[in-house]
Amino acid sequence: MYYLGIDIGGTNIKTGIVDSRGNILRKTSIKTLSERPYLEIISDMGKSLIQTIKEAKLDAADIVAVGIGSPGIIDSQYGIVRYNNNIGWIDVSLADEIKKYIDKPVFVHNDANAAALGEWKFGAGKGLKEIVLITLGTGVGGGVVIGGKLLEGNHSAGAELGHLKIAEQGYACTCGRKDCWEVYSSATALIRETVKAMTDNPKTLMWNFVNHDIKGVDGKTAFECAKKGDITAQNVVDRYLYYLGEGLINMANMFRPELLILGGGVCAQGDYLIKPLQERISKYIYGGKLVESVKISVASLGNDAGIIGAAALAINEYE
Amino acid sequence: MYYLGIDIGGTNIKTGIVDSRGNILRKTSIKTLSERPYLEIISDMGKSLIQTIKEAKLDAADIVAVGIGSPGIIDSQYGIVRYNNNIGWIDVSLADEIKKYIDKPVFVHNDANAAALGEWKFGAGKGLKEIVLITLGTGVGGGVVIGGKLLEGNHSAGAELGHLKIAEQGYACTCGRKDCWEVYSSATALIRETVKAMTDNPKTLMWNFVNHDIKGVDGKTAFECAKKGDITAQNVVDRYLYYLGEGLINMANMFRPELLILGGGVCAQGDYLIKPLQERISKYIYGGKLVESVKISVASLGNDAGIIGAAALAINEYE
Repeated sequence: MYYLGIDIGGTNIKTGIVDSRGNILRKTSIKTLSERPYLEIISDMGKSLIQTIKEAKLDAADIVAVGIGSPGIIDSQYGIVRYNNNIGWIDVSLADEIKKYIDKPVFVHNDANAAALGEWKFGAGKGLKEIVLITLGTGVGGGVVIGGKLLEGNHSAGAELGHLKIAEQGYACTCGRKDCWEVYSSATALIRETVKAMTDNPKTLMWNFVNHDIKGVDGKTAFECAKKGDITAQNVVDRYLYYLGEGLINMANMFRPELLILGGGVCAQGDYLIKPLQERISKYIYGGKLVESVKISVASLGNDAGIIGAAALAINEYE
Repeated sequence: MYYLGIDIGGTNIKTGIVDSRGNILRKTSIKTLSERPYLEIISDMGKSLIQTIKEAKLDAADIVAVGIGSPGIIDSQYGIVRYNNNIGWIDVSLADEIKKYIDKPVFVHNDANAAALGEWKFGAGKGLKEIVLITLGTGVGGGVVIGGKLLEGNHSAGAELGHLKIAEQGYACTCGRKDCWEVYSSATALIRETVKAMTDNPKTLMWNFVNHDIKGVDGKTAFECAKKGDITAQNVVDRYLYYLGEGLINMANMFRPELLILGGGVCAQGDYLIKPLQERISKYIYGGKLVESVKISVASLGNDAGIIGAAALAINEYE
C-alpha cells in the first residue's frame, strides 16, 4: 500500500507517492504562485496528486491516506491551516478541500513537525523512543517525537523550539520577543554575524572567499575560512557554536531525548559542527556524567525530507 | 481501593493513604535523618507505611499500589534512585527495597514530576489535556503532563525545566552552567536580589519590614513592600516578574499546554503575581492573538501536594 506526501512551500508544492518503508515511488513539483486565491492553489494540488498517482501507474484504491506538511500554525486535529504567513492563508480547511480530489483520510501538520516525524520514522532517529529535530534555516524550527507521537500542544501550536529566550544581546525576533534562540542559531543569524565581522575586519580572509562581494556571504563563509586559519572567521564560528550548543543543551535538559538531530544547510559541516557541539552537550547537560548523555547527529533524509515527512504523518497512523 | 503515597524530603518522609479521588485518609511523617545508611532510612519508611495502614484500620489487601516521589535523578522504569543529592543516595533500588515491606507494585518518580501529575489528576489541572507545573522554591523545578503521561525523557532525566539558559547576567547555576532560568526565578533568586537591592539602598522600606535584620528577608519582603509603594522593592518585583514571565513564555512556546501551573511559596501573592504574568504571556506568546493563549494559575494541592502527587503516580496506572 502507498501513501501521498505533500510538502507545501512558499515557492514549490511537492507531491510524492511513498511506500510504508519511506521509499519515494514517484514525485512531482508544481509552482506555488502564492499570490493566487487559495482555492486555485488547492485545485492545482488536487490535479497534481491525481497526476502523480497516474504517472506511478496506480489508482486511488492503492492510496491509504494523505499527509500534508505546511508551514505556519496548523490545527492538526481538524486539518485546518490557521495561519500560513508564506502564502497568506488564514483558516483554510485544507484537509476537507483535498478530500474533494481524493477521498482518503488527510493528515495536516506543521512542516517542521512533519520533518521530525519523518526523521524519527525513516531517518536518523529510526527505532528510537524520543528524538528532537532542530532545523537551522531562515529561522530555527523543528519538532519533538515522544513515544511515536508528535509533541504539538493545544491547537497544535507548540514545539516552537526556536522561540525560547536564550540570551540578552537585544536582537529582535520576528515573533515579537527579543533574544529568541533563532536570532542566534539560524542560518540567517550566522550570515548576519559573518557580515558584521567582515565589516569590522577589512583584512579577514572572508573577503577573498566571497570575491569582495558581501552579497556572496552564506552559511559556509565563516566555517570554510575558519578551517583555513582565519581568526575573525573562527570567532564567528565559535560564537555561533556557543549559542547553538546552549540551545541544544536546553533541548537536552527539557526533553532528554535519545538523539538530537540537526537539519539545514549548515549540517554540511558534518563533524566540524557536530563534534564540538557533542562535547559541549556532554559537559554541561544536567546531571553531568551521572546519566547517559544525549547524542547529536545530522538529519539523514536530505532533499526529500519534506515529502517523506509529510507522508510519515499518514503512514504513522497506520503502520 | 486505596493507594500509598510516599514523599521523600531531606528533612521529613511523609506517607499517606490516598483514595482513587485524591483524598488523604491518613498521613504520617518521620524524620529523614539523612546522614544514616540508606537501608536504615528505607527500613523506617517500611515500618511507617505498615503503621499508617494499621492506623487507618486497613490492611495490605486494601492497598493497590505504592507511589514514591523522590528528589534527584530517578530511573522510573526500574524504580531506581540514580542520584539524590539531598540524602546522598546513589543507585538505590528503592522500588525493590520497599516491596520487602509491602508486596505491591511500586512506582518511583522524581518528586517534581509527581507533583505535576498530582496537580493534573487532582488539582488545578484536573480534566485538562496538557499542563506544565513550575515550582518556585530553592530551585525552579516542575513537570510536564501530556495526554495523561509524564514527560520524562531517556532514563527519566528530562523535564529539568529550571535548567534552560535564559539570560546573560553571568550568574552561576548549581548544575554547572550559567544563567539557567532557576538562578533568576527561584525563591532563592528573589531573596538574593532583595538582599542586593537593600544593600544598595539603605533607605528602602524593606529594612523596616525585616526589622533591620537582613536575615529576615524572604520571598515576601519585596512583594509586600512594593505593595506599600516602595520603589526599590517594586524594582525587585518587576525584575523577578520579567524573568519569570520570560521563562513561562518559553514553556508556553515549547509545550503550548492548556494551563501553566505555578507552585511554591511565592504563589501566596495570588493575582498580584498571576495577573501581570498572564498579560505578559498573552502579549508575547508565539502566534500572538491568532491562537488561543495559554492560561496560568496557582497550584491547588497545597501542603499535601507531595503525598497526593506520589500517590497519583500509582493511581494513574490503574484509574
